[in-house]
Amino acid sequence: MSLTVVGSVALDTVETPSGKNIEGLGGAAVYFSMAASLFTRVHLVGVVGDDFPERHVKLLEGKNIDLEGLERTPGRTFRWSGRYHDDINERDTLDTQLNVFEQFHPKVPETARAAEYLFLANIHPALQLEVLDQTKPVFAGLDTMNLWINTTLDELKAVLRRVDVLIINDSEARLLTETLNLRIAAEHIKALGPGVVVIKKGEHGCILFGQEASQMFALPAYPLESVADPTGAGDTFAGGFMGYLAAQESTDFESLKNAVVHGSALASFTCEDFGPDRLCNVDTAQLEERVAAFKALTSF
Amino acid sequence: MSLTVVGSVALDTVETPSGKNIEGLGGAAVYFSMAASLFTRVHLVGVVGDDFPERHVKLLEGKNIDLEGLERTPGRTFRWSGRYHDDINERDTLDTQLNVFEQFHPKVPETARAAEYLFLANIHPALQLEVLDQTKPVFAGLDTMNLWINTTLDELKAVLRRVDVLIINDSEARLLTETLNLRIAAEHIKALGPGVVVIKKGEHGCILFGQEASQMFALPAYPLESVADPTGAGDTFAGGFMGYLAAQESTDFESLKNAVVHGSALASFTCEDFGPDRLCNVDTAQLEERVAAFKALTSF
Repeated sequence: MSLTVVGSVALDTVETPSGKNIEGLGGAAVYFSMAASLFTRVHLVGVVGDDFPERHVKLLEGKNIDLEGLERTPGRTFRWSGRYHDDINERDTLDTQLNVFEQFHPKVPETARAAEYLFLANIHPALQLEVLDQTKPVFAGLDTMNLWINTTLDELKAVLRRVDVLIINDSEARLLTETLNLRIAAEHIKALGPGVVVIKKGEHGCILFGQEASQMFALPAYPLESVADPTGAGDTFAGGFMGYLAAQESTDFESLKNAVVHGSALASFTCEDFGPDRLCNVDTAQLEERVAAFKALTSF
Repeated sequence: MSLTVVGSVALDTVETPSGKNIEGLGGAAVYFSMAASLFTRVHLVGVVGDDFPERHVKLLEGKNIDLEGLERTPGRTFRWSGRYHDDINERDTLDTQLNVFEQFHPKVPETARAAEYLFLANIHPALQLEVLDQTKPVFAGLDTMNLWINTTLDELKAVLRRVDVLIINDSEARLLTETLNLRIAAEHIKALGPGVVVIKKGEHGCILFGQEASQMFALPAYPLESVADPTGAGDTFAGGFMGYLAAQESTDFESLKNAVVHGSALASFTCEDFGPDRLCNVDTAQLEERVAAFKALTSF
């Protein structure tokens, strides 16, 4: 089945202990689409300015990604800039320029509306509601961030009531539920709407909570020898997760577990180089090899 | 095969968000022995003062624990006091009174010397060397802490050259190797002596690095609904790990992996109540049930 994602397309300037990447291709919808396109057709809904390099468009079009929903608007593309610490799990945002994103209202094209799977990447909950009003997904996923939890909680809760899975960082889960224990936090989140919750813990992996209270699955992150740039790893995870499910046409717990594994495997590739440089070259054989490595890493 | 442990026996005063435990039974060698005694005979070498409650001696003797090596010395037993934060992964040490531990020199009795498996819990590396000089273990394990890494590094390195496995916290591994990446840190540690390294990450589980560079095993911690008191969880892990290996009479990678699982399962019990209150009531059936829960939690 096909999959639609709505989210940011960006030009990222990133500094890590491994080097610097100036105005590279970035944005949640980009990482998500590249990862998901290994499994199924992805419809990308977003906006770029007239300065968005044509080579990035070509790169995305060369994948299984439909750009009909990618608006080109006069003005500058959304820009984000950040610097990672020596401890690569810590970063500071140096600059955020919304630019054309400021006036953005998602318009979901016909083919994208027909997709059975939908992912609302991290944008303003009001925009996420606009997308839900234009679509009728069988299975909808959601990402959000501390900014929306702190400033637009009511709208975020309206979105949560209408989605099937929330994919969220541990710190955001704790903030949203005002509880420290992640297992309790997941129960609180389920009470807000989504039947399935995935809590991401960065270098420590993630925990999946299924519909039943007894359904838990924990997966470590792949221990890489070096992490060049973790930007986009979370969005890559979400793309692999949703793409896998869409291809399986199933969201039972076994499928959800395997979706977590495939999402984590793809996220580990993203960390190996700057921006989506490694991710965009991953093929199915390499992905399955990394999934097998996860199996060896975790089975006893 | 039997197992000897040398380490602290203590009276701990602990405050956590769940309550307070005043002068309860504690100490690394206690948690270690209780966990390991589920698998094999354990010889405990340590020291207590003449104030050490007889009921604690009775409790330990009621397990598969030999106390011939537990010295009783005039004076007060070693005391530790700490307070955990609302985030139970953080704690402050409020007080440490070495007392009879200050003049302690381990004397390993005959039967304890004959044990094929040895664990040097976290004490001064000079004392760990004294133990190694009295024993000829087939397989020796080691714990240490930031204090010894910072103040007695040369003696610690002399110990490392003579042990087979180091079980260490992530922050201590980073301090010891002056590197942030845990996979690289494990390689650095192996170069110092131990062929096997286990890096513990608290609520995030642990990673086992085997003799071969390709041998890695990562296990999440069990997601408990509530953690009453994590004191002793690391020592419990070590006891379960070493006890399992001693019982298997094997230290191949499959055995090491299963040792990690059994150690983690026992550590999860320790966290469920204050001090060793839950651990001391765990039976083999409950342990195997928790191991099965780990399997369900991690398999895909």
